[in-house]
Amino acid sequence: MITDSHIIDTVSAHHLFSALTEAEFQQLFSTAKTCKIEPLENVFHQGDKASRFYLVLRGHLKLYRTSPSGQEKVVELMREGNTFAEALMFNNKPFYPVAAQAVSASELITFDNDTYLKILKSNPEAGIAIMANMSIRLHHDLYEIEMLSVENAKNRLLLFLMQNIQDKDGNEGVIELDIPKRTLASLLSIQPETFSRLLKKLAKEGLIEERRGHIRIINIDALYAASDIPVQPVTGGNNE
Amino acid sequence: MITDSHIIDTVSAHHLFSALTEAEFQQLFSTAKTCKIEPLENVFHQGDKASRFYLVLRGHLKLYRTSPSGQEKVVELMREGNTFAEALMFNNKPFYPVAAQAVSASELITFDNDTYLKILKSNPEAGIAIMANMSIRLHHDLYEIEMLSVENAKNRLLLFLMQNIQDKDGNEGVIELDIPKRTLASLLSIQPETFSRLLKKLAKEGLIEERRGHIRIINIDALYAASDIPVQPVTGGNNE
Repeated sequence: MITDSHIIDTVSAHHLFSALTEAEFQQLFSTAKTCKIEPLENVFHQGDKASRFYLVLRGHLKLYRTSPSGQEKVVELMREGNTFAEALMFNNKPFYPVAAQAVSASELITFDNDTYLKILKSNPEAGIAIMANMSIRLHHDLYEIEMLSVENAKNRLLLFLMQNIQDKDGNEGVIELDIPKRTLASLLSIQPETFSRLLKKLAKEGLIEERRGHIRIINIDALYAASDIPVQPVTGGNNE
Repeated sequence: MITDSHIIDTVSAHHLFSALTEAEFQQLFSTAKTCKIEPLENVFHQGDKASRFYLVLRGHLKLYRTSPSGQEKVVELMREGNTFAEALMFNNKPFYPVAAQAVSASELITFDNDTYLKILKSNPEAGIAIMANMSIRLHHDLYEIEMLSVENAKNRLLLFLMQNIQDKDGNEGVIELDIPKRTLASLLSIQPETFSRLLKKLAKEGLIEERRGHIRIINIDALYAASDIPVQPVTGGNNE
């Protein structure tokens, strides 16, 4: 029987388990196993029979596929708190389509598919509660992806501005765009609406002025500071 | 009865619906409604009774909360193909904790919570199939977040390098770090392992050489090109 409180806490916090009743949790744990995996050791190989799914308690693993020509392609990285192979269980797939290998020394807990599915089938309310968790998790991910994408877009725009300063005068600079803004947004892989929003934001912060393809950078240092780099330059000096 | 094929296609493609049988799909559609929302128009207000959930067919909406002092906080943006308020349904919450308002002209389809839940309760297999979809979606998001984070980390590192070139000689430059690499990684909000991986990658690509806090940038132009900016500078000229 697993009694380690770190393990119980990690499992309880996961969206697949947090909605289970105490009795269901005990039922699931009675068929769970923990295992330690050394770096480069495989948890399973591509094509192995899939009767269990896994939760990473510690460490870092890769899921990978090997092509007929022997080339390895990493399809996903798994860290503490991530589960893997549970989608196969839900989909009733009999074999692992990828291999799982530890990148760093790892510890896993593995659950029996049949036991988990039996709980869901005997108690649809448990299933709905788990869907609530998954749904909240999906909204959270959507938000994170949105934020990261905007952050990335901002970084790409800042990098572009830094690269393209044409006339530099002290802390000021000028960029004449020779392509339409819509085309530039597309080249920078930024949604047109995000692109306009970012330019407006920089203008509002007093960092740039923009009019008809002419961008004046009012304060190059402040533009750097507007990036998400939370450090001051190592030297205070001018690079020229 | 909704017969528009674009609507049926968008709904069928979503993870909450794609696993339903034809009969279940028809049952759900018999209580579904479509609605058009103008910019600034609300779909619902904070505190309204929550008996339906929504799928965005077209447009762009914001979910927001208003604080007691009247300040608005946007908690999520919803685009075509996104659902909202379904987590409340799974959690059996009676009121919307946020308001939903159209940012651009939008079209929605809305489903009756009771009808959807009745389908799930009467057919646990449908629930498990939907969990399979949600699980695949979660893995996909995890991958996207991982990629965006690495991309962001790379951009932050590149920005840092560009900002901190101390001795510049033509296309070469030198940076002497006066803080440990581990500290720099932390200041740049990069995982230590990702930071090492990125430095190694840049070295392997022949862009930098790194030894004991001394970073030599072999080719500044190539370093710029290594960023994810898919455009050439507007001018080919040197900015100095």
